[in-house]
Amino acid sequence: MPNAPFDERLDALLRVAAEVFARKGYHATTMRDLSRASGMSLAGMYHYVPGKEDLLYLIQRRCFQSVLRDVQDGIEKESDPVARLRTFVRRHLAFFAANMNEMKVLSHEAESLTGDRAREILDLKRRYAQLLQRTIAGADGRHPSVAAYALFGMMNWIYTWYRPDGELGPTELADTIAELFVHGVRGATARSRGAA
Amino acid sequence: MPNAPFDERLDALLRVAAEVFARKGYHATTMRDLSRASGMSLAGMYHYVPGKEDLLYLIQRRCFQSVLRDVQDGIEKESDPVARLRTFVRRHLAFFAANMNEMKVLSHEAESLTGDRAREILDLKRRYAQLLQRTIAGADGRHPSVAAYALFGMMNWIYTWYRPDGELGPTELADTIAELFVHGVRGATARSRGAA
Repeated sequence: MPNAPFDERLDALLRVAAEVFARKGYHATTMRDLSRASGMSLAGMYHYVPGKEDLLYLIQRRCFQSVLRDVQDGIEKESDPVARLRTFVRRHLAFFAANMNEMKVLSHEAESLTGDRAREILDLKRRYAQLLQRTIAGADGRHPSVAAYALFGMMNWIYTWYRPDGELGPTELADTIAELFVHGVRGATARSRGAA
Repeated sequence: MPNAPFDERLDALLRVAAEVFARKGYHATTMRDLSRASGMSLAGMYHYVPGKEDLLYLIQRRCFQSVLRDVQDGIEKESDPVARLRTFVRRHLAFFAANMNEMKVLSHEAESLTGDRAREILDLKRRYAQLLQRTIAGADGRHPSVAAYALFGMMNWIYTWYRPDGELGPTELADTIAELFVHGVRGATARSRGAA
């Protein structure tokens, strides 16, 4: 789309880059591979970004900013703590079911950025993880930090097995995981109180 | 250890290879990198394996065979279905907390093997996943297939955040995850029965 605005063309380039990074791995991918996959010339790509690491950085930043905003918007609308936790799971999974390549790249290339960019992304991830920990603590969960990582694991592992166009739709997937986790967190709390 | 038996030296080489693959990625690693890291000569390494893909194959095969055997031995000793599920979680996490590099390699390089070797490993993984699904179904879980993937996600994601030598010991980690999951599976089932 040669006449599309700058942002749209950059978005399209980021989608293609995420697909190629997910398939070949970031380190094995060259700007030439991305040129071939996107149909953009090398010179054209360098008009958008100075190099490959910028693409990885922009993919990570956009994803974490978007999912953080989506989830925050969603949970602010809920007052019940358990409804907030369910909303977190649903919005996180809805976002990543629509961005499966990006999800794989976020998981596999978490250590591929360097310097200030690595720190900026780490800071976004920390804010996101803290939002989940507060949401779990609000819903009466013990060990909110382990529970948060456990939930991220349940959700993020889907890039290894889930097919959004298969029998199980993203909403049913999200509901199943949300139920497992909500009952898990509350059941484990109730049991430890009963035992105390 | 030049005088150690063949199997021990191969084991040591596999440990080093897992560490280097986990750090650099399989595709970016050369036999020369492995020679440097292991202190074995290139010729010495070729005495053990014909090439890099054999190392990756042996790492994956040994891990899946060992964890499958560990878990099977453990759950056979239990008759209570919930105790069997807890044992699964504990043995899986105990194994991988002691094999964190291997765990990262298993996750990141799941698609790096080809041909018969890829099929053999996939078959081992399938047997292992089916064992978990049967264990969950036995403990009264609905959606045993989604629940199994969710549990693998909770457990396997630890390579991204868990430090076995930190404050939270492997046993406490395993117990926290087991409680979350057991209550989750049983709570979600009870709720759906109550609603029916």
